[in-house]
Amino acid sequence: MSSLPGSREPLLRVAVTGGTHGNEMCGVYLARNWLQDPGELRRPSFSAMPVLANPAATAVCRRYIDRDLNRTLTLTFLGSKATPDDLYEVKRARELNQLLGPKGTGQAFDFILDLHNTTANTGVCLISEASQSSFNLHLCHYLQLQNPGLPCRLLQFEPHEAETYSVDSVSKNGISLELGPQPQGVLRADLFSLMRALVAAILDFIELFNQDKDFPAFEMDIYKILGKVDFPRTTDGDLAGTVHPQLQDHDFEPLRPGEPIFKLFNGEDVLYEGDSTVYPVFVNEAAYYEKHVAFLKSEKIHVSVPALPGLTPSSTQTP
Amino acid sequence: MSSLPGSREPLLRVAVTGGTHGNEMCGVYLARNWLQDPGELRRPSFSAMPVLANPAATAVCRRYIDRDLNRTLTLTFLGSKATPDDLYEVKRARELNQLLGPKGTGQAFDFILDLHNTTANTGVCLISEASQSSFNLHLCHYLQLQNPGLPCRLLQFEPHEAETYSVDSVSKNGISLELGPQPQGVLRADLFSLMRALVAAILDFIELFNQDKDFPAFEMDIYKILGKVDFPRTTDGDLAGTVHPQLQDHDFEPLRPGEPIFKLFNGEDVLYEGDSTVYPVFVNEAAYYEKHVAFLKSEKIHVSVPALPGLTPSSTQTP
Repeated sequence: MSSLPGSREPLLRVAVTGGTHGNEMCGVYLARNWLQDPGELRRPSFSAMPVLANPAATAVCRRYIDRDLNRTLTLTFLGSKATPDDLYEVKRARELNQLLGPKGTGQAFDFILDLHNTTANTGVCLISEASQSSFNLHLCHYLQLQNPGLPCRLLQFEPHEAETYSVDSVSKNGISLELGPQPQGVLRADLFSLMRALVAAILDFIELFNQDKDFPAFEMDIYKILGKVDFPRTTDGDLAGTVHPQLQDHDFEPLRPGEPIFKLFNGEDVLYEGDSTVYPVFVNEAAYYEKHVAFLKSEKIHVSVPALPGLTPSSTQTP
Repeated sequence: MSSLPGSREPLLRVAVTGGTHGNEMCGVYLARNWLQDPGELRRPSFSAMPVLANPAATAVCRRYIDRDLNRTLTLTFLGSKATPDDLYEVKRARELNQLLGPKGTGQAFDFILDLHNTTANTGVCLISEASQSSFNLHLCHYLQLQNPGLPCRLLQFEPHEAETYSVDSVSKNGISLELGPQPQGVLRADLFSLMRALVAAILDFIELFNQDKDFPAFEMDIYKILGKVDFPRTTDGDLAGTVHPQLQDHDFEPLRPGEPIFKLFNGEDVLYEGDSTVYPVFVNEAAYYEKHVAFLKSEKIHVSVPALPGLTPSSTQTP
């Protein structure tokens, strides 16, 4: 697999959104902190705008009020006629579209970095749409080079629905940063500091990109979402078991056919029956119980990523 | 400190309550499981009754609907005149009082075991009112003997208010079992199995007690709650920092004067300014942010616990 670089326009209108889910505390408190003092988000060529994406959910420390905001930024919702009965997150999606979009237009922000936490043991995980991979792959590679010893993975997805829906889909390019494990409603100092440092590094990368720096070609492993696996359930739809101890906390590690994935409440093991090795991600994420997701299956792919040449005279002369 | 054993009446009416907080998943799913199949809760002299304490909060996976149920079992709430506008948990407290009480009367259940999870790294922690210590100390000691290598601590509190308020305060004797760390809304198989085994051992202990077994005297360390410590806050009341990495996950370990307790968002450390070593508990528990509790301070006390003699002829003849 390879990705062609897009046109090299500088990213001048950049937003960092936290609190898209109101109980994912690193982004909530980073956004609040930057709204008071945005100095950390300034770079020579741009100043990133901090946004507290879901203030009502944040105020009550819940993921959302009426529906998941990060599934609501579709053109269908954004283009629908506003009514007084609209769900809170539908109203808020329209406000964000006003602020950072309009989605799909030339007026939209150049880049949104959306901050998340998960209860799963993902470590540092960037989530990117497959269509936006070239810039985002270079971004991930930059973070890997800056943080040797810290696993930093890129998880790629293609929206199943016809249209994109996430907060970072409003801008021309965007990415989500996931950091875990952290319980909902808890702010861990170690993850707060790590996310703050990662955001700084991402803004540094954007600055280097804006300065027309050459980013050479490289190879890396990425993870591509294949599908979801639900919990074992009773005929009533209730849980009949939970994630197996051998799978719990093992995000991004290989799961081979025949290995256990669930421990039923009656003590029996449920084994993985797929044909090939997969890489589970978001294993036992609290927010995904209601989405009927015990974990996502991904495949590991080795990709060769072409250079992002700078717009210097020498590089533009290269055939 | 020593505790005198109470009168040796068998505990025949025993309840195990889960889901007192609807997002603490081990108790929620154990209670649901036992409501389907209560066989595990049977012993020769009694059958413990499983209770899903807060079904409405459990259904939406939240700690509570209107107010914390585990602070609502006061005689004031239970004795107040019911009105249609009563908060959900006040209504539910009255129902539990009907089922397991009435609190403070001879009709009340003999023992309630109330199951909880915490996001803090408490391990196995029994929480007991100081007034009910003799039986509960023997119970904790029994679990320690049954599970060598598994830290099992007893945390003792005296209600600050004039009256007791917890679910397990409805019965003549009671105890809470806390198990952590587990994120809210997540069911970990390892903690689920451990809690299930601990409940079985607690019921075994009650059975031995009912069989008039002699429990010899012993010595142990317990932890007594001294007070709470709030997060550092801005003048607006918002967080100005969070638990320091050196304190995070170190529940029940000594905290000495001058050691760091908070990391401010501006990078500064806040040091513990007390006069003596304390033992923090419930460090960074998600549900306590709204209660303005970053952690509880406790003191470690070495106690000599007198024997619980059986009601055998030989022991009753002992002066």
